[in-house]
Amino acid sequence: VEKSAPIAVCLPESTEQVAQIVRWCNSNQIPFTARGAGTGLSGGSLPAMGGLVVSSKRLNRILEVDVENRRLRAQAGAVNKRLSESVGTFGLHFAPDPSSQSVSTLGGNIAENAGGPHTLKYGVTSQHILEVTMVTVEGETIQLGSCVEGSWGPDFLSLIVGGEGTLGIVTEAWVRLTPLPTAILTALIAFRTVAEATISVAEIIASGAIPAALEMMDEGILKAVRLAFSLEYPQEASALLLVECDSTGEDAGIKTDREMEIVRRIAAKNHALSFEIAADAAAQAKLWTARKKSVGAMGRLAPSIVTHDGVIPRSKLPEMLAFVYEVAQLRNLGVANMFHAGDGNLHPCFYFDDRDPDQVKQVVEAGEMIARKCIDLGGSITGEHGIGVEKIDLMSLMFSEQDLELQARAKKIFNNGSLCNPCKVLPNQKSCVEHKSRSRGVSW
Amino acid sequence: VEKSAPIAVCLPESTEQVAQIVRWCNSNQIPFTARGAGTGLSGGSLPAMGGLVVSSKRLNRILEVDVENRRLRAQAGAVNKRLSESVGTFGLHFAPDPSSQSVSTLGGNIAENAGGPHTLKYGVTSQHILEVTMVTVEGETIQLGSCVEGSWGPDFLSLIVGGEGTLGIVTEAWVRLTPLPTAILTALIAFRTVAEATISVAEIIASGAIPAALEMMDEGILKAVRLAFSLEYPQEASALLLVECDSTGEDAGIKTDREMEIVRRIAAKNHALSFEIAADAAAQAKLWTARKKSVGAMGRLAPSIVTHDGVIPRSKLPEMLAFVYEVAQLRNLGVANMFHAGDGNLHPCFYFDDRDPDQVKQVVEAGEMIARKCIDLGGSITGEHGIGVEKIDLMSLMFSEQDLELQARAKKIFNNGSLCNPCKVLPNQKSCVEHKSRSRGVSW
Repeated sequence: VEKSAPIAVCLPESTEQVAQIVRWCNSNQIPFTARGAGTGLSGGSLPAMGGLVVSSKRLNRILEVDVENRRLRAQAGAVNKRLSESVGTFGLHFAPDPSSQSVSTLGGNIAENAGGPHTLKYGVTSQHILEVTMVTVEGETIQLGSCVEGSWGPDFLSLIVGGEGTLGIVTEAWVRLTPLPTAILTALIAFRTVAEATISVAEIIASGAIPAALEMMDEGILKAVRLAFSLEYPQEASALLLVECDSTGEDAGIKTDREMEIVRRIAAKNHALSFEIAADAAAQAKLWTARKKSVGAMGRLAPSIVTHDGVIPRSKLPEMLAFVYEVAQLRNLGVANMFHAGDGNLHPCFYFDDRDPDQVKQVVEAGEMIARKCIDLGGSITGEHGIGVEKIDLMSLMFSEQDLELQARAKKIFNNGSLCNPCKVLPNQKSCVEHKSRSRGVSW
Repeated sequence: VEKSAPIAVCLPESTEQVAQIVRWCNSNQIPFTARGAGTGLSGGSLPAMGGLVVSSKRLNRILEVDVENRRLRAQAGAVNKRLSESVGTFGLHFAPDPSSQSVSTLGGNIAENAGGPHTLKYGVTSQHILEVTMVTVEGETIQLGSCVEGSWGPDFLSLIVGGEGTLGIVTEAWVRLTPLPTAILTALIAFRTVAEATISVAEIIASGAIPAALEMMDEGILKAVRLAFSLEYPQEASALLLVECDSTGEDAGIKTDREMEIVRRIAAKNHALSFEIAADAAAQAKLWTARKKSVGAMGRLAPSIVTHDGVIPRSKLPEMLAFVYEVAQLRNLGVANMFHAGDGNLHPCFYFDDRDPDQVKQVVEAGEMIARKCIDLGGSITGEHGIGVEKIDLMSLMFSEQDLELQARAKKIFNNGSLCNPCKVLPNQKSCVEHKSRSRGVSW
């Protein structure tokens, strides 16, 4: 809902060209903001102060594939899914798989420390980045991390990955490649109530099983998904779990069978209405399309949707979902939930009409209520979408002044000025306050 | 070999007492250095500039066990192994297991980002720390990280864990608990040559199997171990692999059987002389005692030993080991290798007589040659023992001036002075140069 326009867009093809652009911006005091596919959900790549947008559109080559050491070097603009496709024949893939992966870029995944449905087993982006080449805010080129696993060094990558593009412009990265599972079972399980589904989630995790994915969809989303993807499930269901078990090696089939058997037993104990395992790869792909495009499918329900992002301890899922429904009712908004249940990473999705200022106001306030509740339950205001401009005002809810001061100092390691992706993540930055009131006036 | 003495040792029992001590040190300009069990191998807890040693001896309580969310809160002085013992009845453990774990402390593990033989499957300490309570260098108490998994925030823990006690004094931590394997197979495999063993390591990893541990011992260590622990293996063996496969869940036995079968096939292909699986838990424990106490057992061979620590890409293991033997011969030193082969983390161990200044000189120079070779092969001068005072002069071999400047800036987030564990990790710190020449004169 926040909008802002750059004065120009550059399309560099090399690290050196990015460095030249950054040096030029410094000489001329022009703000600059890196941008991949622009699929981020918190506005990290918006040029909040105008200036140049440094697009990674042409910075999209895969530079080196090292199968033996299971690593790959690519430019920041390479599309996430292409990384995996380029090494599929070697039985490898790049594990982070945000729903946007068919268009979103490696650089964007790094900036936002992207997750995805398979985060439960394989971890977020930071666990898959070995080394980055970054153009500093001054226009110098540095390498951080190491493409050799186990090397010693201060862990700067943990700041850069998830730094939302505020610490410099990552132009290349060495990423870790993960063996492709050789056996995959994907099940769609229907429950009469949301509570039965969330309890099943908790029990599956407690059993020691680690499914590759454990995704939940509630009644709100089911209607849209059924219409769009002809997904079949019992009429009386009000929650679906999408559970995937995978494994590698020669006994992979046996391992996934056994893990899925544990899931089946827990689902049955919690009165599952149906339990369907996808018959083949095509059926699996269909289930995943339904899940990954589910937010898009909601476009059928209303002109606008906003997907929120919060984290809570898994044991609080039933309480949190009840609260989300309550807020939606209170604010007279439609709500749907499809989320990474295994991670406790919630994505309440409100649908509304953004031409109605009152509905917009209700949606914004509902989002803040949900963020506050996540904090109250001991969680976090974002799991994988980032702070960007969207949640900058909520930072002081979650962090003390002392915490924010430490964060400001950490930023200064790499960025002591304000030209590189200004007015993001950290609240109360000098020169951003005026901008904010101005852009709010325009955008709402 | 580096030695230095404090003016006093304090034994605080609470975070607040640590904070008081730090504030007093600041008022009186007295350096202070935290110390756990003092088992570190790079001198991280040596009071390099004298001053106070803040011991965690009495800061040793386990404060909270949360089985449902698989986490535990303990004070920094709690002994590593006690953490696991306290939750064993719940089928859980604290995974990092350095060889020193029966005495070394949680705080020391955090300071050095300790690894251990099971790092191959379970990761180093940083992957098991959720949140720390730290007394800052100014004497304030802060929390970093989050005991809820998946929470957003700048990843300061990645700097604190492995910060070698230079960024403040960690007094408490929430640690992640990992399910205990329900099936474990431990095999001792003998090879005629080191090359056959290292090739087997590479092939096991390439097969996609992830053993819980994959440890190698060469001829140098075998003699000491055979004497001390009556370990049996064929006379003509010059390398042993200790391989452990483990798993959880009800089909754990089948999974470990199958994984060990892959190991057995690869070992046979590489002409293993023998392949013995420990018959029971007692036999497993005996193998691990031999491995973990192997450096101690070398005390039988010479008055002094120095264990080095370096990392190389796994594929370079044969080349690196050949180089280590060459250096030992050149310098006329005895050498033994027992190390985390699966991680490419080498521990060449020289034995010598520290009463002979020439032997000491040869050992120091041999260590530097090995460190340089690790860097040449694309690796690192330390895998898990840290920089401390031991390797401070080698930092500029591995890092450019620009890298070191970034590291200095990162340190400033938490420590912009020099009282907290001074003269460690970063070379060329003000006021440390004089100290170094002085202490070198004394200690050699």
